[in-house]
Amino acid sequence: MTDLKTLFTLSYGLYIVSSVNQEGKINGLIANSVAQITAEPVRIAVTLNKESLTHEYIQQTGLICVQPITEKASLIFIGNFGFRTGRTFDKFAKINHKLSKNGLAIVTENTSAYLILRVNNSIDLQTHTMFICSLEEAEMLDAVCPPMTYDFYHKELKGKTPKGAVTYQKN
Amino acid sequence: MTDLKTLFTLSYGLYIVSSVNQEGKINGLIANSVAQITAEPVRIAVTLNKESLTHEYIQQTGLICVQPITEKASLIFIGNFGFRTGRTFDKFAKINHKLSKNGLAIVTENTSAYLILRVNNSIDLQTHTMFICSLEEAEMLDAVCPPMTYDFYHKELKGKTPKGAVTYQKN
Repeated sequence: MTDLKTLFTLSYGLYIVSSVNQEGKINGLIANSVAQITAEPVRIAVTLNKESLTHEYIQQTGLICVQPITEKASLIFIGNFGFRTGRTFDKFAKINHKLSKNGLAIVTENTSAYLILRVNNSIDLQTHTMFICSLEEAEMLDAVCPPMTYDFYHKELKGKTPKGAVTYQKN
Repeated sequence: MTDLKTLFTLSYGLYIVSSVNQEGKINGLIANSVAQITAEPVRIAVTLNKESLTHEYIQQTGLICVQPITEKASLIFIGNFGFRTGRTFDKFAKINHKLSKNGLAIVTENTSAYLILRVNNSIDLQTHTMFICSLEEAEMLDAVCPPMTYDFYHKELKGKTPKGAVTYQKN
């Protein structure tokens, strides 16, 4: 017996994952697939769907900005980064942000922190790529409001899981 | 600036990860480093310290049982699986469990579900190995009590992070 509902008992956070391309264009998306995987040195894995524009940008520059979303973020704020492609829409146009020295967008509202990562290795997972990264720079932005869990997003905000997510299920 | 406190804003669950060796001996440990990484097919990554006995057993048989711990689990229950090696101690002696058909221990108290995994690929991360696994069998055990997050373990139970964990920090 393989009950796929068991997969919903695994816990995750909710993150803005963004990158910058060779021309300096920025784009980001919402993902739950961010995790520290070693302590010394600090290594962080970020797993993204190959079809996303952010994936394309990461492949160009090897740069990623990860930001945990806080519990005070609205579904509208989250929706701005998810469920649409950055190919036809500037996701950062109406979002408060600044640029890091290497041109990554750092969202300064509804985020706990920013972590600037550099890709060291890419693992091909067919539909997705896991980027294994070192931590280049990191700073707290809101230490008071708790980071949003994926469970909170589903249960409190009634958020959905888009096709393309690592945890997507048809029903 | 690299503020390592930002790493605590990443969210995880808390899991019993166990395996069985070639002689049928079982052992398990506590880990937060379990995550689904692709949807079709379902692939789950489990990252463990190379020095753990469970890591040794997994390398022998390629079999893993992952079980999310529920919020009703006590620090004593969790401590039974963590902070000690199974080399000198039978971690399952006083824990309610049954055996799967391939000899894995399925803990039947304080767990949300069990997921039986088979290792397809191993990624060497120096101190740790990431096992990339397919899902062979899975069943819900407790759909009522929420799965424990790593944050809950730290804040509510005042649980600690052992040396060897992917998220360990010295201070």
